[in-house]
Order: sequence, then structure tokens, then C-alpha cells
Amino acid sequence: MTLDQLNPPTRLLMGPGPINADPRVARATASALTGQFDPWMTATMNETMGLYRSVFSTANEQTLLVDGTSRAAIEAALVSLLSPGQKVLVAVMGRFGLLLEEIAERAGAQVITIERPWGTVFTLDEIEEGLRTHRPALFATVQGDTATTMNQPLEGLGQLCHRYGALCYVDATASVAGNALLVDEWELDVVSAGLQKCLAGPSGSAPITISERAREVIYSRRHVEAGISEGADGPGERIRSNYLDLAMLMDYWGPERLNHHTESGPMLYAARECARIIADEGIAGTVARHRLHGAAMAAGLEGLGLELFGDQTHRMNNVIGVKIPDDVDGDRLRAALLEDFAVEIGTSFGPLAGVVWRVGVMGYNARRDAVLATLAALEAELRRFGHPTPASGGVEAAMNHYQEQES
Amino acid sequence: MTLDQLNPPTRLLMGPGPINADPRVARATASALTGQFDPWMTATMNETMGLYRSVFSTANEQTLLVDGTSRAAIEAALVSLLSPGQKVLVAVMGRFGLLLEEIAERAGAQVITIERPWGTVFTLDEIEEGLRTHRPALFATVQGDTATTMNQPLEGLGQLCHRYGALCYVDATASVAGNALLVDEWELDVVSAGLQKCLAGPSGSAPITISERAREVIYSRRHVEAGISEGADGPGERIRSNYLDLAMLMDYWGPERLNHHTESGPMLYAARECARIIADEGIAGTVARHRLHGAAMAAGLEGLGLELFGDQTHRMNNVIGVKIPDDVDGDRLRAALLEDFAVEIGTSFGPLAGVVWRVGVMGYNARRDAVLATLAALEAELRRFGHPTPASGGVEAAMNHYQEQES
Repeated sequence: MTLDQLNPPTRLLMGPGPINADPRVARATASALTGQFDPWMTATMNETMGLYRSVFSTANEQTLLVDGTSRAAIEAALVSLLSPGQKVLVAVMGRFGLLLEEIAERAGAQVITIERPWGTVFTLDEIEEGLRTHRPALFATVQGDTATTMNQPLEGLGQLCHRYGALCYVDATASVAGNALLVDEWELDVVSAGLQKCLAGPSGSAPITISERAREVIYSRRHVEAGISEGADGPGERIRSNYLDLAMLMDYWGPERLNHHTESGPMLYAARECARIIADEGIAGTVARHRLHGAAMAAGLEGLGLELFGDQTHRMNNVIGVKIPDDVDGDRLRAALLEDFAVEIGTSFGPLAGVVWRVGVMGYNARRDAVLATLAALEAELRRFGHPTPASGGVEAAMNHYQEQES
Repeated sequence: MTLDQLNPPTRLLMGPGPINADPRVARATASALTGQFDPWMTATMNETMGLYRSVFSTANEQTLLVDGTSRAAIEAALVSLLSPGQKVLVAVMGRFGLLLEEIAERAGAQVITIERPWGTVFTLDEIEEGLRTHRPALFATVQGDTATTMNQPLEGLGQLCHRYGALCYVDATASVAGNALLVDEWELDVVSAGLQKCLAGPSGSAPITISERAREVIYSRRHVEAGISEGADGPGERIRSNYLDLAMLMDYWGPERLNHHTESGPMLYAARECARIIADEGIAGTVARHRLHGAAMAAGLEGLGLELFGDQTHRMNNVIGVKIPDDVDGDRLRAALLEDFAVEIGTSFGPLAGVVWRVGVMGYNARRDAVLATLAALEAELRRFGHPTPASGGVEAAMNHYQEQES
């Protein structure tokens, strides 16, 4: 059997992720490998930790990568923070809140949820009521739930949690670098992400940052195996996972470099290059770019006569939900868009399946040409599917938005 | 802050892994990304499953990738196969047996071990005695323990386990493609690997194959979340991890394509290219190449007057342990080798730390020039460190080995 080398088709990925990696990130993944304790490798790991402190707006020493997709870091956070039987309060406003609930249950925690309809967010008062009533050890929420496009306000959340004796975990996979995320200012204890959204990279590496408060809890559950790892045991209940044990990961990324997994070279390189590009632009500049192009996309979709989904005052900059017109088969149109224009937009989950398309404007694709090309292609397909669109159209509406922002 | 692009030093990685990736694999990681349910992507995933069936010599439908390093797949296997309280018998002949023990404990299993001194392997009779005495639900072992360089014979192991009502798990991370591994013929139920050894790739993706017997056990623990995943629940105890839940991974890789994590593009591409290269050479040819160059390295090391470690009749083809001469500081010499010749060889763990170096001859580096360059550099450093080496030397001994094999 002789197979050809890979030859992927060219796609413009304007769904909720993954997106096209920045070409510089793609090239970085192909860089030469070194040993995992090579002085150059450990220096590069340290440098990458520093770069992600900037991305997260934090001074947390414990800022590192989990070697897996964003979901790996979510599970690492929950399984490392939560001892079996401990109480966690999970805010559910979409599918990724349900995922936090499920992962916490599997970790053996006692899980309590507060819920909001898909397309809305929680007020801090609602969260405070949950904390007051349930007194959990941990509060867990997503920042941006791609399932609904909503962006949960987090300002003051850490302070609130700490007042009630809870730690605070935030899944920022979809939101980081596309929306403000001030880990230290908001006193968030553990925040995790993934490269495949606004960080402009591929899936497969998950940055995470851990406050001193959270580090202490996790280290109290540290468990050292004779013959496998070195150091000292903590007094707490042992973490149920080895691969996702954040105590071991901190020891691996820390100055002691205790052996754990073998860090993935290509994914480290990708993560480092994603953050390097953002450092050049400045994290505030990256967020502003997502705001600009996301708003242009939203204006363009409305210019096509489509109705946006959810509370637009709390929408993430980088994902827009749009209602599928009644006279159009959403999946068939998406397939046509991919086949005719090589443009991918997203379907939805659960209650929004068949009702809402999701359009992403993220990372390398948060650019004017990508926005305009998507709108032009979508307009053409809507017409081919017999759905009337306004004469002025989506491209013009987006261009008007850009012009207004410039002046 | 403006940082430069990555500029890793050129190294010849002749330790126990990671090794230099085949340049074709490195290039493949930089290929363009598509959406995870793009028809091209799902076809590529299916193609990759087929390629790994050849690598594992199996017809198992359930042959897929875990999105993490080799350790992620070990944990996926153990946490998915073992319900809390279930009995597992672990064969420990080195550090990676201890790792299986630890991971199984964290998964809540009742762990019983049989042990052999580092540098030796088990006979099937010893394993049978363990199975007869303890009647475990699962028997777990490594094939090649890089900590000791030993290669556990596995022929007939699955049949033996099944006779005693146990399933059988094998960690083949270090051994696959460097040593015979006949998953179907030996009736091994779950076998996992990693790319960073004889598969000639980077760390970060972990191929795994799952027999029908094992699939049934895992599917009986399948648990489906409303709003998150679809399908039907199984009757068994829920798997404690979401990220490493093999039932969910089988559903994601299977024809239903149920949503789970977002498969890493670069790591899928790397895994596919590793297996494509092996398919070109033929898996038996790849194993034979490792045998040839590993034996040449061993002959060369002996030609340097060094003593090999462990039972040489059961050594992996691809890793050689060699005793550090008494008059040499092992770590200082390794550092000099890296600095002067950019050649990396490995240190050891636990009882072998400071006693044994480990030299790998794996994947892309299982080649004549890499073997000879390593021997020449090692010989030069041994002399610089004041350790006398025989006049004929290591390079000549290795060359003689190659000549003998050719004739």
C-alpha cells in the first residue's frame, strides 16, 4: 500500500472553531525537536509560560500548558481542584456549562447547578445567591459558551467567590484573546483555554493558569510515587488522574522538572508562536481586532436580513449566532457553502440544532477579507436556496461598519 | 516585547525518546487545517485508523488516536477498562510497570502486582501463576520498558489471560514498530502507543487499538449526557474521565461522529504520516531495520569496552542500556556530548540513575550514520574524560556488525 502525502483542501474556517491556524503557527509546528530536558527546550517552556502570563493578564507563576485539547485542561482543573464528595457550583447557560457539570460529576464531586436559558448570561447577584445558598468549595463557569455565543461577565467574580470561601474556575477556551479576560484583576483562580479559537492555532494544547490559592489546594493533594516521581506528599486526598494531575504538571513545568509526560514539541511550538504573535499585537489590540471584525460580521449578517441569536449586549466578540431562515435547510446550505465556496460556518447543538448557525470570526480569520468573503458567499447561497436577501446586502453593511469605525 | 521566531538547535536525539521526527512527519504537521467534521477530515481520520491497524497487525475496527501523549492513552485504557474496586494484576519489571500500577490505583482499581528485578522479564508461567492466584479482571503490562530496555515476550499472553477470564492491556509505547507486536495473533485486548519512539514522530498523539471483547466492556460503561452527547447508556459503572473515556472516543472516531474533543490537526497529520512511512517500508521491514541498527549500536558500545545492562536475550531492539564506567561522571559526560557534538543520550531512573546510560536507536534515527556518529562522539568524550577505550573502538565494531549482516 502506498498512500500519497497529505493534501488537505483549502478552507476558510468561519465556524465556532477550529479555525485556520496563522501560517506562522503552522510553520512553527514543523520546527526541529530537542530532548525534553535539553537546556533550549526548558528555556523555551519557561518563555512560553511568560507569554501566557501576558495572554491571561496574570502574574501567576503557575501558567503552563496541558498536553491535550482544551477539554483536557478543563478536566485537569476540575479533577485536581475537587476531591470526591466536595461541593461544586456550576453555572450552566449552554452546552459547555453542561460539560463542566458532567466532568465534575465524573470526578466524584457533589455537583449543584444554577441555570439560565441559552442565549443569556448570569448576573453577579444570581451567582452570589447560589454561593450563599450552597457554600461550594468551587464555583465553575465558562466565560464564552460557543454553543450560545454568550460572554459571561466575570468582573468581580473572584472577589465574590472568595468572600464565600469558594475557589473559582473559568473555562475561557472560546473567549480568551477575543474578549477582555483579566485573571488577576478579577481574582480568577484557575482559567484554562485552547489554541483553536482566538489564539489562532490548532487544537491540541491547552494553556492554563493557576493562582497561588489554587496551587495550595492542588499541592495539598500531591502524591509522589516511589520509583516514579520525587518530592513530598501533600496531606489531601489523592488526585484521581495521573495524566491530568496539575500538581505533577506544575512539578514538570517548574524548576525541579520532575518527569511526567513527554511534552509535545509541535504543540509547544504552536502555543508559543500563538502567544508570540499576540505579544507583538498586544493582548488589548488582539481583543480590539476581534471586536471590530466580529461586529462587522454581525452587521453584515443583519444586512442579509438575518436575525441574530441571543442577548447581543453579552455576545462574545468572536462568535455570532444567527437564526436559520424558515425557508432554508440549514445543513444543506452549510454543505453547499463548503462545496461551492470552501467556506465553513457552524451548526448548533441541543435546543439550537437546526435553528441557529454559528459564525466565527477568530484568530487569523478575524480579518476584513475573511469577513467579506464569508458574507458574499452566504448571500449567494441564500439566493440559490430561494431565500430573498435585501438589495443592499451583507457585504455593504459590513463595509459600512468598517467605515464608521475608521471615522 | 518582541520575541524572535523559534530557532531550535540541531540535535541528534539518541536517547530513549523523544527522537528527531522524520522530516516528512515534521512537514506534515504544518499542513492546512479543516473543520473537524469536514468530509476530507473524517476521511483522513478513517484512513489513519486503517494505517494503524497495519502498525498493530490487527483487524480491530476500534483503532484510533488519543489526543495526548502516550501516557494519556495508558490512562484512557485503564480508566475505561477498570471499574472502581475491580481487580487488576500489573506486571512490574521497571518504571513503566510502576506507572501502570499508579494509574490503575488512581482509577480506583484494586491493584495487585507481580515483580521482577529491573533488567529481566517475566516468563508466561510466572504470569499464569499470578492469574491463577488472583483472578483479576485485567492483566496489564508494558511490552518494552524503556527504563530497563527489556522487551517482555507476549506471544500467547492474550490466550492465557482469556483462559483465566481476564482482559489484557499492553503499553507498547516504546516497543511498537521496533519489535514484533502481533495484536491479533497474540489476542491482546487493548494496546496503546505513542509517536515519539520507533514511529519516528513527535510526542502528542497516542495510537490505541481495542479488541471486540474490550469494546464490549467499555461500552457497557458508556454514559450519555443529555444536551452534550447522544446515543444510549450502557449498564456498567460510569467511566471516571470524560477526556479519556474510550467509549466517547470510539463514538467520535466511529461513523456516528458524536462530538467530543476537537481532534488536533497537527497531531493527526503527524500520526498519519508516521504510519504512512511505515506502510511504505512494511511493518516487518521497520522492525528489521531497528534490529539491525540497534544490534550495531550494541556491538559498537561493547567495542568501546562498555558493559551492556540487563538480559540481552530480551532486550528491545531499539534501546540499549550501558553501564557508566566507574571513573566517569555520567551526567557530566552526557552534557559534554550534547554541547560538543549535539548528541543526546539518556540518563536512567530509580535504581539505575547514575549507573546506566540509555542509548536509543529509534524511528528516523535507526540509521547507519546516526549510529556511527553517536559512537564516534561517545568515544571522543570517554577519552576526554580520562576513560581508556580499546584501540579498535566502537565505530569499527559497529561497521563490522553491518558487514557481517550484509554478507
